[in-house]
Amino acid sequence: MGKIERVGVSLDQELLEQFDALIAKQGYANRSEAVRDLIRARLDQEQLAKPATEAVAGILLVYDHHATNLSAKLNHLQHDHLLQIITSTHVHLDHHNCLEVIILKGKVSQIQSLADRMTSLKGVKLSRTNIMSTGKELT
Amino acid sequence: MGKIERVGVSLDQELLEQFDALIAKQGYANRSEAVRDLIRARLDQEQLAKPATEAVAGILLVYDHHATNLSAKLNHLQHDHLLQIITSTHVHLDHHNCLEVIILKGKVSQIQSLADRMTSLKGVKLSRTNIMSTGKELT
Amino acid sequence: MGKIERVGVSLDQELLEQFDALIAKQGYANRSEAVRDLIRARLDQEQLAKPATEAVAGILLVYDHHATNLSAKLNHLQHDHLLQIITSTHVHLDHHNCLEVIILKGKVSQIQSLADRMTSLKGVKLSRTNIMSTGKELT
Amino acid sequence: MGKIERVGVSLDQELLEQFDALIAKQGYANRSEAVRDLIRARLDQEQLAKPATEAVAGILLVYDHHATNLSAKLNHLQHDHLLQIITSTHVHLDHHNCLEVIILKGKVSQIQSLADRMTSLKGVKLSRTNIMSTGKELT
Repeated sequence: MGKIERVGVSLDQELLEQFDALIAKQGYANRSEAVRDLIRARLDQEQLAKPATEAVAGILLVYDHHATNLSAKLNHLQHDHLLQIITSTHVHLDHHNCLEVIILKGKVSQIQSLADRMTSLKGVKLSRTNIMSTGKELT
Repeated sequence: MGKIERVGVSLDQELLEQFDALIAKQGYANRSEAVRDLIRARLDQEQLAKPATEAVAGILLVYDHHATNLSAKLNHLQHDHLLQIITSTHVHLDHHNCLEVIILKGKVSQIQSLADRMTSLKGVKLSRTNIMSTGKELT
Repeated sequence: MGKIERVGVSLDQELLEQFDALIAKQGYANRSEAVRDLIRARLDQEQLAKPATEAVAGILLVYDHHATNLSAKLNHLQHDHLLQIITSTHVHLDHHNCLEVIILKGKVSQIQSLADRMTSLKGVKLSRTNIMSTGKELT
Repeated sequence: MGKIERVGVSLDQELLEQFDALIAKQGYANRSEAVRDLIRARLDQEQLAKPATEAVAGILLVYDHHATNLSAKLNHLQHDHLLQIITSTHVHLDHHNCLEVIILKGKVSQIQSLADRMTSLKGVKLSRTNIMSTGKELT
C-alpha cells in the first residue's frame, strides 16, 4: 500500500442521501470504501477492454457428465492452451449435471478463446466467463 | 438543485493516479463530476432492477422495410400499449434497412414487454432497449 | 434477400417446449424467426467487438438543462467529431431534466469516444450508448 | 435425456454462411449444438431474471490478504447466510492479492445479497458474481 491521499467530492445533498441508503443496504462501513469500489470497478472495466491485459478468470461450465468423452476433452483443452490453469473444481449438481469451475490466468483474449472452445463442446449446456484484472494495479 | 455537501474520500495514491488518467482521457474537467457520474450510474442501475420504476427509454430497431406490413404492425403496437410514446424517428440506412428509434416513458416492465413484441416481428433484425431513470431523483 | 436455405436442428423435446413457451410470450409467430433473431444477435455482438466496425448508434443523455452552456458544448462535440450525426432529438422530461437522443453512424471506437466526451460534461447525469451493426450484413 | 425432436429453420444463405464461419471459429462440431447453446443461454437469462429461481453461482473476489480480519469476516458471512456453500477455493495471486472463488447454491436474490455483503468489505478490491440455472431444466 502506498501513500494515502484524501480528495474532496462535492455532491448534492439528495444524491448523497440516496447513495448512503444504498451502500448501507449493501453493508459498506463507510463511504470511502464504497467510492473506492466504484473507482476500482471502472478501472477494471477499462483494463479488460484491452485483449492483451493479464487477467485472472473463472470459467464456469454446467454440463451433462454422461456426454461421451467430455471430461477428457475439457482436460485436453486445458493442457493445450498457453494459459496457466490454477485449479479446476468439479461439483455434482444432480444425476445428470455437473458444474466445473476452472480458475486460470492469462491474457484476456486467450481466456476468451479457451472459454469459447469449451462452450462449443457437445454436452456443455451453459457457461460463464468471469475475467478480472489481477488486482496488482488496483491498490 | 438542493444543498451541496462536500465529502472526503481516502484513496491510495496509485489508485488515484490511475483514476485521474482515465477521467482525463474521457474529458472530465474534475474528479467531483467523475465520481458523481459513477454514483448516479450505480443508483440508476439499482432503480432499474425494480420492474415498477418509472423510466424513460429508447428502443432502437434495425429492420427490413420491405417486410410486409411491418411499419403498420410497429405503429399498432405503439398505440396498443399503455406507454407514453414521445417520439419515433425513422432513419434510412440503405436500400433494405431502416433504423427506427422510439423514445417512450413508462414502467420498466412495460417497456421491456413492448420491446419484446417489437423484436419478435418478422423483418426486425436487431434491437436494443436502453432504459434510464427519468433523472428526477438524480439531482 | 438472397437464397433461403432450410437447416435442421435436433433438440431435446423438453428444451423445445420451454423455448416455444418463451417465444410465444415474446410474440414470435414461429420458431424460425426466433432462431434467426438469436443468430443475428450473436453475429452482431461479434461484429461490435471490433473497434473498426461501421455501426449505427443511439446515444441517450439525461441532463440538467440549467447547466451552463451544456447545449452549446454538446452541439460543439457533435460538429467536432468525424462522425455522421443523423438526427438529434430533444425531449423535455420535467422542470430540470431533458433527454437528448443522438442518432449517428461511424466506427465503434469513434462512437464510444464521442459518448465518453458527452458523458463527462457537467450537467449530464446519465448516459447510455447503444451500438448496432448497420444490418447490411444481417440479411 | 428425453425424446429428440428435429425442427427446421429457414435462413437466408448469407446469414447462414456468417453463422457457420463464427461457430467454426468457436470450435462447434455442428450447427445443431450451436443453436442449442443459443437457445439454452436465452432460457437461462429468462430464468435468472426471477429472484426466486434456484441457481448455482461462483463469486470471485480479489482481495488484499493483509486487510485486517478479512478472511474471518468472509468466513462468517458464508456461515451466516441460508445458502449452501459448496466449495471455497483460495488462490495466491501476488504478495498482496488473493483470489477467493466461492461456489454456492441458492435463490438468485440470496446469492446477490451475499455477494453484495462480501464486496462491501474493506480489503475486497474487485468482485464478480456469476449465476447460472442449475441446468436441470436445460436438457
